[in-house]
Amino acid sequence: MDEFELIARYFDRASADADVLIGIGDDGAVLRPAIGLDLVTVVDTLVEGVHYPAELPAADVGYRALAVNLSDLAAMGSRPRWMTLALSLREADPAWLSDYARGLFEAAQEFDVTLVGGDTTRARQTVMSIQVTGEIEQGRALTRSGARPGDEVFVTGSVGDAAAGLEILQGRSPAGKFADDLVSRFSRPTARVAAGRQLVGRASAAIDLSDGLYTDLEKLAAASGVGVELDLDCLPVSDALRRSVVGDKALSLALAGGDDYELCFTAAAGEFDELVDVAGVPIHRIGRIAPGQGIACIRDGSPYAYHDRGYRHFS
Amino acid sequence: MDEFELIARYFDRASADADVLIGIGDDGAVLRPAIGLDLVTVVDTLVEGVHYPAELPAADVGYRALAVNLSDLAAMGSRPRWMTLALSLREADPAWLSDYARGLFEAAQEFDVTLVGGDTTRARQTVMSIQVTGEIEQGRALTRSGARPGDEVFVTGSVGDAAAGLEILQGRSPAGKFADDLVSRFSRPTARVAAGRQLVGRASAAIDLSDGLYTDLEKLAAASGVGVELDLDCLPVSDALRRSVVGDKALSLALAGGDDYELCFTAAAGEFDELVDVAGVPIHRIGRIAPGQGIACIRDGSPYAYHDRGYRHFS
Repeated sequence: MDEFELIARYFDRASADADVLIGIGDDGAVLRPAIGLDLVTVVDTLVEGVHYPAELPAADVGYRALAVNLSDLAAMGSRPRWMTLALSLREADPAWLSDYARGLFEAAQEFDVTLVGGDTTRARQTVMSIQVTGEIEQGRALTRSGARPGDEVFVTGSVGDAAAGLEILQGRSPAGKFADDLVSRFSRPTARVAAGRQLVGRASAAIDLSDGLYTDLEKLAAASGVGVELDLDCLPVSDALRRSVVGDKALSLALAGGDDYELCFTAAAGEFDELVDVAGVPIHRIGRIAPGQGIACIRDGSPYAYHDRGYRHFS
Repeated sequence: MDEFELIARYFDRASADADVLIGIGDDGAVLRPAIGLDLVTVVDTLVEGVHYPAELPAADVGYRALAVNLSDLAAMGSRPRWMTLALSLREADPAWLSDYARGLFEAAQEFDVTLVGGDTTRARQTVMSIQVTGEIEQGRALTRSGARPGDEVFVTGSVGDAAAGLEILQGRSPAGKFADDLVSRFSRPTARVAAGRQLVGRASAAIDLSDGLYTDLEKLAAASGVGVELDLDCLPVSDALRRSVVGDKALSLALAGGDDYELCFTAAAGEFDELVDVAGVPIHRIGRIAPGQGIACIRDGSPYAYHDRGYRHFS
């Protein structure tokens, strides 16, 4: 099986998207953008052994590789349309590739994304870069930089589950009663695309949570030139996580655990007063934007010293 | 130096492109497509030790990584606009990164491409995927599939130089008088973007030469459902190549050598009769399109048996 057969067998699927004028098989893809919409483009790389353990089932690797990109689009309020896949493989293992493609297209179908091109090469380590392009109403993209003092801070879903799931997957934590729930939060991240669409015009800033709530919220605050008062008692922790760990571990994972792919966003006070969910996803108010910079944590009504740098490559 | 410092130091440069509403630094880039133009998207991966030898100077790696993508856009007649860079590095070596970025931006400035986003990760082998998006007049993209019997076949520039240069670079051939000329054809490919623009509306099909003239022309013929009569006596071989090798080596490299990044295109008979260059690039007529399939080579007026499969990953 050479690279052309590999692409034909696993990745070249018919597209129902009339705006894909030319898809896989030529020198490039030709796409027709809608009039009056901006394009939003994101790219994320997954490296085997770095972003996911080698034991992760191939279908989950495929699903996850797309989902983490969709999460970036969600954070900007964009509707996903088209993707490309740059896949460097250790070996062309038909069983792995078949499962990988199945997981990838499962996510693609769920979110209505069309694979329009890519490149397949051999490497000593499996590395995949997916780029997804979406659409958004002109000038309406959510950014990290719009938070203003007085705004409230929210997060979708729950935080910390994925990091707990990864620990179980890697054998660093015992697999208890809720292992499947927690592991699936790592292996099948729930990209909050529908919620992100609902936030357009309502949220003042947004970011998706890949490196950990604390670290990512710091980035949002820095981009907006503001500070944050973060109420640790309000962090949404799932029952599964709460009942799987002891002591402050749940709080620690909720603050510093990565890979949740929830949305953290800000909005003017009152904007979300009545709402307990957005597009079916629960939201929780976890703090407020303040003048200044950095994150001030509050626990049981008092300041709480916390420092974590999240995950950074090369550091 | 962590990944955020690395991006800030080497890759986050101010953009003069008013259609880049949001560039590097948020969850994604926001771009405004022009009304009445289609988008052309290409992605190519370069793996150290596979697509280029580890000894290739970092500035050349950067230049080349973008140039090979621009070549794909050229083959579709598209004007390049925006790129993303997914860069997985063995190590964050400041000297290498600085040179790499210099070469990358040299090509970006030469072809007026803006870096709008990317992802930087660590891996055991350096792997880079660049995606470039360009524009083209609606419905006018050149493809591989438009060649018809009676059309003539052309190639820009000269073929075989890059493969000869790579042999010298890797020490498989001695470095003679023309070594620099040949090596630079590998390390600094000349993406034929201006020529590609001139072919829009005039060429019936086009492909860029990455895997070798014979192999790539076979792909064009297969996509068009036609055969090709290829006149080996007409292949443009540079003086540098002709004077650097002996016997049939020049012909062999011209036919099967990869990495030339010239354009091979077809056009109705007579369309290019008067022309010896397109956008300043010499063109040569090397054959004609015939009914049937596959490539029939002709040498000294007689059929000539030739078989080569070019380079394929995983085969």
